[in-house]
Amino acid sequence: MKLATINNNTRDGKLVVVNKELTKAVEVSQIAPTMQFALDNWAKVEKDLKSVYENLNSNNVTDTIDFGTAKVLAPIPRAYHWADGSAYVTHVELVRKARNAELPESFWTDPLMYMGASDAFIGANDAIEIENEDWGIDFESEVAVITDDVPAGISPKEALNHIKLITIVNDVSLRNLIPNELSKQFGFYQSKPWTSFAPVVVTPDELTDKWQSGKLNLPLYSTLNGKLVGSPNAGVDMTFDFGQLIAHAAKTRSLMAGAVIGSGTVANQGSPTGSSCIAEVRCLEILKDGKPSTPFMKFGDRIEIEMKDIKGESIFGKINQLVKKYEHK
Amino acid sequence: MKLATINNNTRDGKLVVVNKELTKAVEVSQIAPTMQFALDNWAKVEKDLKSVYENLNSNNVTDTIDFGTAKVLAPIPRAYHWADGSAYVTHVELVRKARNAELPESFWTDPLMYMGASDAFIGANDAIEIENEDWGIDFESEVAVITDDVPAGISPKEALNHIKLITIVNDVSLRNLIPNELSKQFGFYQSKPWTSFAPVVVTPDELTDKWQSGKLNLPLYSTLNGKLVGSPNAGVDMTFDFGQLIAHAAKTRSLMAGAVIGSGTVANQGSPTGSSCIAEVRCLEILKDGKPSTPFMKFGDRIEIEMKDIKGESIFGKINQLVKKYEHK
Repeated sequence: MKLATINNNTRDGKLVVVNKELTKAVEVSQIAPTMQFALDNWAKVEKDLKSVYENLNSNNVTDTIDFGTAKVLAPIPRAYHWADGSAYVTHVELVRKARNAELPESFWTDPLMYMGASDAFIGANDAIEIENEDWGIDFESEVAVITDDVPAGISPKEALNHIKLITIVNDVSLRNLIPNELSKQFGFYQSKPWTSFAPVVVTPDELTDKWQSGKLNLPLYSTLNGKLVGSPNAGVDMTFDFGQLIAHAAKTRSLMAGAVIGSGTVANQGSPTGSSCIAEVRCLEILKDGKPSTPFMKFGDRIEIEMKDIKGESIFGKINQLVKKYEHK
Repeated sequence: MKLATINNNTRDGKLVVVNKELTKAVEVSQIAPTMQFALDNWAKVEKDLKSVYENLNSNNVTDTIDFGTAKVLAPIPRAYHWADGSAYVTHVELVRKARNAELPESFWTDPLMYMGASDAFIGANDAIEIENEDWGIDFESEVAVITDDVPAGISPKEALNHIKLITIVNDVSLRNLIPNELSKQFGFYQSKPWTSFAPVVVTPDELTDKWQSGKLNLPLYSTLNGKLVGSPNAGVDMTFDFGQLIAHAAKTRSLMAGAVIGSGTVANQGSPTGSSCIAEVRCLEILKDGKPSTPFMKFGDRIEIEMKDIKGESIFGKINQLVKKYEHK
């Protein structure tokens, strides 16, 4: 099943069921008016939503919306929990290597995770509005899952059952603000402004055998100004699967329905198919040439992020964003 | 005006207006069914809510609820943003001194702030459920404000206008999990499980001249198992006022209505009237005796946190919580 939230001039938008090809959508307000409502009541609404999805795919629904031109919001336009892991430790190792820092051995067994701003989610085609280019604007292409209610102390295996929806995200990062924030040890705050979401979220069954044990075994394509930056496989070199990430997040307290858990920048060891952020590209340049040559994003740049199924069809729709100067209102 | 959220077996509870003496409340579903709704529409609903408050205080409302026995939830039972500062730098300085660490000079000018779990808010009388006593269970008594929508890049002065509600909180901390998390530089995560709220939130005018320039000039009482731990004045030694904290939080992106911003552990230089957490008590013991003697909280302990007006009346009602073992459901 594929779901999205479209703009109806409310803060939470309107839930729609989207067909497999991402061309048509249908309102389901009689089942669940918003994505948060659906997640709050997942056990009750899932079957009805799936039935709408099947009918939509069989062309048995008349009152459809053209999804291609619909104004999408983030699937949950505002959420109660956004936790982002660094599951691809090979990426962290590379970044450390570029600045001659050791990777603590524990990083391979104890997930890195930070709490992000769940009120700063933006839609797939929204501009990335940043006040200052000098902050070092970067994208981070990631996989993310959305859970129902997760009890505290859950095991990684049990946690997998709480993954209701899957999508891809752009965890926008301000690289030049990071060193100061990390040195204070309180985590990212100003350096992680917005998080952008693909137009569509899907249930795990939609990914067939590409979704295995909490990993999504498909390449994630990041394209900057029309040029492919990388397409690492999200199922390869993922040190911690989503079950482990959720269990980490829920170790000392429960997570509420609609919690969004990110994978961190997707990366493969040695970056044979490129990278999912500019920071990694620059680290590779430092290791090769002694200095970075690729600049961070500038106003006017366009970042596209997409994942395709084995037939080459877009699964979640495309994140397609212009970087733009934030204007004070 | 005083507001609270009471349990109606929904996730968001039911908004009520509470009288000044905290004895009576009245439903206001015709104005705003939930606290989040009120904050989403503050400019529209504020006047009507204040009118109810005035009538309630003048005994001109008939259909009231006994607030003393009402089951209160956190004022916003689930929120979209929870940012906690460390505004009392004197406290941070003391903690560092106890472990022979330097305080970076920048800590006096650049606020420390971490993102907390806004889906893990609990009510004033809810038990603090923790799986393991060995995690070092501590309370942190703080002041917190709740904002309406805050644009990115706002000035500290302008930010003060976005403070709609004020209350006190207990930022529960697991001290023995903190060193490992901070060493990873990604901030607190498992070490900050629940945040507990006083029964009531109030508008700034309710605090009369005790609310000045984003600081609340009254002592905050923390009592553990019936024994006063401390009553530092929240308006003294607050290095960053709430305007500065909000401006810090909103530097690179906007904050959504209902954002909760905490002050960090209230502390006065030299701790002349005691402390607002056990960690500070232990630091003072280390500096005096070379080792700490006060243990962290155990199952069965009771923590009470309260702030009183100049007449000695409770402003927000009392946080009154039992520490209890978390049982897997």
